[in-house]
Amino acid sequence: MEDLLKFAPRPTGMGEMFQVLRDGQPRTRADLAAITGQARSTIAARLDLLVSTGLIGPAGEASSTGGRPPATFAFRPSAKVVLAVEVGVTNVHLAVTDLSSTILAEAELPLAVADGPDVVMSKVAETGRKLMATADRSPEELASVGVGLPGPVEYATGRPINPPAMPSWDAVDIPQVLERLLKVPVLVDKDVNLMALGEHRTNWRTVRDMLFVNVATSIGSGIISDGELRRGAQGAAGDIGHIAVPTAKDVLCWCGNAGCLEAVASGNAIAAWLRARGLIANDTSDVVALIRSGDVTTSRAVRQAGREIGSVLAACVSMLNPSLIVVGGVISDTSEHLIAGIRELVYQSSLPLATEHLRIVTSRNWSRVGVIGASAMAVEHVLSPRAIDALGP
Amino acid sequence: MEDLLKFAPRPTGMGEMFQVLRDGQPRTRADLAAITGQARSTIAARLDLLVSTGLIGPAGEASSTGGRPPATFAFRPSAKVVLAVEVGVTNVHLAVTDLSSTILAEAELPLAVADGPDVVMSKVAETGRKLMATADRSPEELASVGVGLPGPVEYATGRPINPPAMPSWDAVDIPQVLERLLKVPVLVDKDVNLMALGEHRTNWRTVRDMLFVNVATSIGSGIISDGELRRGAQGAAGDIGHIAVPTAKDVLCWCGNAGCLEAVASGNAIAAWLRARGLIANDTSDVVALIRSGDVTTSRAVRQAGREIGSVLAACVSMLNPSLIVVGGVISDTSEHLIAGIRELVYQSSLPLATEHLRIVTSRNWSRVGVIGASAMAVEHVLSPRAIDALGP
Repeated sequence: MEDLLKFAPRPTGMGEMFQVLRDGQPRTRADLAAITGQARSTIAARLDLLVSTGLIGPAGEASSTGGRPPATFAFRPSAKVVLAVEVGVTNVHLAVTDLSSTILAEAELPLAVADGPDVVMSKVAETGRKLMATADRSPEELASVGVGLPGPVEYATGRPINPPAMPSWDAVDIPQVLERLLKVPVLVDKDVNLMALGEHRTNWRTVRDMLFVNVATSIGSGIISDGELRRGAQGAAGDIGHIAVPTAKDVLCWCGNAGCLEAVASGNAIAAWLRARGLIANDTSDVVALIRSGDVTTSRAVRQAGREIGSVLAACVSMLNPSLIVVGGVISDTSEHLIAGIRELVYQSSLPLATEHLRIVTSRNWSRVGVIGASAMAVEHVLSPRAIDALGP
Repeated sequence: MEDLLKFAPRPTGMGEMFQVLRDGQPRTRADLAAITGQARSTIAARLDLLVSTGLIGPAGEASSTGGRPPATFAFRPSAKVVLAVEVGVTNVHLAVTDLSSTILAEAELPLAVADGPDVVMSKVAETGRKLMATADRSPEELASVGVGLPGPVEYATGRPINPPAMPSWDAVDIPQVLERLLKVPVLVDKDVNLMALGEHRTNWRTVRDMLFVNVATSIGSGIISDGELRRGAQGAAGDIGHIAVPTAKDVLCWCGNAGCLEAVASGNAIAAWLRARGLIANDTSDVVALIRSGDVTTSRAVRQAGREIGSVLAACVSMLNPSLIVVGGVISDTSEHLIAGIRELVYQSSLPLATEHLRIVTSRNWSRVGVIGASAMAVEHVLSPRAIDALGP
């Protein structure tokens, strides 16, 4: 139960004390003793241990009203780095980041998932090593790796589950493949989950209930509830692309069902709608080009796609009661019509209690939010209270 | 992040050690030292403290291969009691339970929420005291109170938020009212959330992602995700009764919108549908009576209501990917047609990945599951790892 909300508990363990320091603020031993309620000797011993790992460092002296000013300590995000990987169907985005998920070096590789996990992962490891070198970091400084894949993943094992876009990856133990190459823990999740995490950790850390919606060639979402990603029983949570919409009843979806949201409102669906009206639009990039050219029919199509997405999000709002929906992807990035259509339907169809404090916004940096989320996942794994506790005696 | 799933951590703190014992199994000091990795002296000191509170007691001797058999210790659910309260619109269900949420005494009172929180809560406190006496427990043994209300609640403060069924309760500090009378912590939540919690803690503790759906005069749901209740930003999560269904487009709902699920599939909606066909059905109880009489038109209406609910739950399944849906309420308890209709639509409309391992079942004891959930909330508050840690030095 979240009784934490009622009686704010003290962060008594070492791992919890370390979380206090993760905001980067310098603190004295006395500050930490006051916050945690632990003895000065305990605090001193913990700080010694954390300083010896490099995760905490001296941060100058606090101001003093008299006598020798006390030393302060702060989190050192530069202590280690992580490798963040976002695998797409035709390309891979890699970044080396520090422990605050700040990107130190990045690369985008053309790579086909059809080549299979072994080929793709050895290329990932090779490029990862080069990026480490570019960032002037030694292999020993790599703490962990975070990988996003375009499809459902069993988070506990890092295995893709029947991923429609990459059948040859089904049930492959991705962490094992990559751990053999890079010798550090590897965490794997669905790409849109990592976009949600990246967006949350970068821009909306204080928001507890948020939905990230990605509108591209397909449509998916990631759920942050009580501050953490929720993946569901098979890692399929957030799969809004295959929720039925009334207006699509006769439209067949690639999944075999009829009437899926993705069949009427994805980049591909918009392109098909435009082709039927004589425009040249083979895929999402063509839709984006038409938006940029100022084509009115395309704007209308995008607005209508927004409404279809909004009708599904209205149900999600009733179900999850988020205080924020962030919309990402190249279409919402290019045209205000998508989010306008979404807002129109959500505010019209949901109960006032659920929409009163609901904001619907465009992602601030959607093209990087996936790797930042992969980085955040990798960092949180190695800096979790329990991981830090495990350092101690 | 849920890295707990990857590297199972040891329960090192006292509060965590206590959680190990909550399953009721007797354990020796050596067992606990092995499980927690703590020194025997630490374990002994913690057990002394917990035994002094009564929460842990000696539980006989373990079998021994030679020498003096070691003493065992176990959780004592009888150490304290909690008061569980489920406020309905026209009645209140109260129970005194032990710390394993076993009901020791219970009562059902006719009480109108329209009388306001002060009148209802003093009656609740008075009856609570009498039930304690019936159960032969002294007032000092009361640890906490859990209250369920028919409407959204801001969980952190225990205040109802614009509850449609009880406008005079809006924003009232219910914990304050009841703490003044009973002198122990009071936790408050929406009734259907507590039904979800009660069902989960009683019958499905190992299920991590579950949805509890209550079909009665209104329709609501409670979400268990990653093992805990999720309430959303304003406590409105799970509000599926006001999700739009295509077949209801022209039906006005009391909420002001048209097409809400509740307007076509609640007990009241079924009654209205039957009235339009010449049957005598004023409310949900009449619907239940007609079901019991074997009326075929009513069975058809209930099956159709199940399909409507199923069409909304299909979207919820795509969104949340639960492994279990539990359906509660008098209608599903009386007629198999409701759950049959639900199953029909959910399995037909959701992706295989989301439904492959999905079970849809009827609540085993829906009439008590609300108070059991209220009890579980109250118990978890006083026995949380942090509450237990706070006992210690």
